[in-house]
Amino acid sequence: MTMSWLKMKAEEAEYVDHRALHAVISRAFQKLGLPPGEADLSAEVLVLADLRGVDSHGVQNSVRNIYVPQLRSGKINVSPNMRVVHETPSTATVDGHNGMGMVVGRYAMNLAMEKARQVGCGFVSVRNSNHYGMAGYYAMMALPHDMIGMSLTTARSSVVPLGGREPRLGTNPIAVAVPTMDEPPFVFDVATSTVAAQKVAIASISGRELPDGWIADREGRPSNDPKLPRDQRVLLPLGGGTREGGGHKGYGLAVIVDVFSGMLSGAGWSMDVEGYNCGHFFGAWRVDAFRPADEFKRDMDRMIRDLRATPLAAGFDRVYVAGEPDHEMEQERRAHGIPIHKDVLTYLRKLAGELGFEPGI
Amino acid sequence: MTMSWLKMKAEEAEYVDHRALHAVISRAFQKLGLPPGEADLSAEVLVLADLRGVDSHGVQNSVRNIYVPQLRSGKINVSPNMRVVHETPSTATVDGHNGMGMVVGRYAMNLAMEKARQVGCGFVSVRNSNHYGMAGYYAMMALPHDMIGMSLTTARSSVVPLGGREPRLGTNPIAVAVPTMDEPPFVFDVATSTVAAQKVAIASISGRELPDGWIADREGRPSNDPKLPRDQRVLLPLGGGTREGGGHKGYGLAVIVDVFSGMLSGAGWSMDVEGYNCGHFFGAWRVDAFRPADEFKRDMDRMIRDLRATPLAAGFDRVYVAGEPDHEMEQERRAHGIPIHKDVLTYLRKLAGELGFEPGI
Repeated sequence: MTMSWLKMKAEEAEYVDHRALHAVISRAFQKLGLPPGEADLSAEVLVLADLRGVDSHGVQNSVRNIYVPQLRSGKINVSPNMRVVHETPSTATVDGHNGMGMVVGRYAMNLAMEKARQVGCGFVSVRNSNHYGMAGYYAMMALPHDMIGMSLTTARSSVVPLGGREPRLGTNPIAVAVPTMDEPPFVFDVATSTVAAQKVAIASISGRELPDGWIADREGRPSNDPKLPRDQRVLLPLGGGTREGGGHKGYGLAVIVDVFSGMLSGAGWSMDVEGYNCGHFFGAWRVDAFRPADEFKRDMDRMIRDLRATPLAAGFDRVYVAGEPDHEMEQERRAHGIPIHKDVLTYLRKLAGELGFEPGI
Repeated sequence: MTMSWLKMKAEEAEYVDHRALHAVISRAFQKLGLPPGEADLSAEVLVLADLRGVDSHGVQNSVRNIYVPQLRSGKINVSPNMRVVHETPSTATVDGHNGMGMVVGRYAMNLAMEKARQVGCGFVSVRNSNHYGMAGYYAMMALPHDMIGMSLTTARSSVVPLGGREPRLGTNPIAVAVPTMDEPPFVFDVATSTVAAQKVAIASISGRELPDGWIADREGRPSNDPKLPRDQRVLLPLGGGTREGGGHKGYGLAVIVDVFSGMLSGAGWSMDVEGYNCGHFFGAWRVDAFRPADEFKRDMDRMIRDLRATPLAAGFDRVYVAGEPDHEMEQERRAHGIPIHKDVLTYLRKLAGELGFEPGI
């Protein structure tokens, strides 16, 4: 029932200490023009994704494909003049001036939390930003402050609306993080498509039949064919390609993400995202704006324990709460290193060579 | 691809004018102790659900099953002392004092909008309330004020967490309404289960095999069997009974609804809902707290038109935007009446007789 068949094979990976991985990414980003603090932050967002097992948004998948080429081509502005273009006591619209997504994201989420501190909750919609890594990072920024955090982002179109055969929406993730007392925090961080494009890509390589609800062919017919070429397949919304399965729900959630991230900020919706001109949305609710935080967090612990104790369905060995597998993965990888594909390591060592520093990995 | 096989048969229905339907429900509620304004409001919420085709939350399904017995037994408090137990400039926690859900809901949503007027956005978490009808009603209250509205509610447990075989979560709906310029507003109003329990009940009667992802048996095995008795089946979260299908996403969304509606208010989560002791959550974001409302609404129209113009997938004759089918249904039913099942009409006429007034339908 798990998707272990999507994982890297053991012989393809080397284990790398997270600090060493952070160092090489941060140094590379600095060599490519980012100031040290912002390079450190950007590396931190990526390495946290790898630590938590969100491999699609970590070092492996995005450094070579997104950040390095965009920093090299100047598409990402390394010294953006980020500014608040409009605000109220609880809201703001930020122009990211095409900066690094993580830099813009942290700035905007901090602003949302500052407003929450002042008036109870805060929301910031962002335009002119770039790929910001794992959506959950920003939601989780709220946790140490006893706030509930939310983070949404537009992405390039790859998902069809229910009933359509051409992509109109991004995988538009929704992340919500909720503080707890002794249990790992509740961290929900999911694409509004059934799966991320990268899972389809990996599954296609395996040659194994794809599960229902992942993709359709270019005529919009739901397909399980792992051999469909990338340009002959489209992603289906959560719920899949039928109304009966709830495909209108995943589709509607994707539109909502576009509304908050793209339309409120003025960035435009998924169809307006050219390259990585993204819109984001960040939210923070102070728990004690509703009730005492300790009471709430004890209740969260109780709910989590009750969910975990649900009698098991046939074929399952555990009921997980959102964020729990990631939390356990993080403990393990902090202690024993992060498995990085050998090709990625070769790339990073070569990159360090080109940029003139010792990779240290 | 539509679910027309779940609709009422023509010979089972009579068409009733929405004003006449409103009148009989409001009078019945008044006779059962609600003040006239609150009876009118409660009837309005129910009839709007019928008008928009949300039959599961309209007069048909809930007057006999929920409101009349609970008003008669005194379970619903007809003169609640609703009060704000905690607040900040942008948030509040409301104790509904066990009032009628629609009365408590409107009060709390109005408070959220008032806070949005003052500081940009507003959120109200509610405890000690009751079944409040169609979640979308409260989200839609925001539309004439150029605000985005949100409404969430806990419900009695009927849905399993992914990997579990016993219900731990309600169908916990999410409703979000977004204003537009000339197009019908975007109104998203869905259960976080694949389908509502009532659809399973209706489908079971038809004897037709159930679609994938709707239910599991009491061992937690996904099932398509329409003959499984009610107490031998459980609802599956949106995404169904596997992680590959995204069942962890629907499950996580249901928990989020519990967190905002139940845990922030202190009502407790789905497992704490006894009878209809509900928690709700209402939100309002002023559009012009982010950018000029007219610009935003024109952009919404453009997005909606572009979505509608998506080339069609095989087997579909239209791409709908959330709220569009409901809007069209509302136009039609306002003009031509609402089809009400004859059994329901018989019940309503008998109810009017018992309460001593002419039903007028």
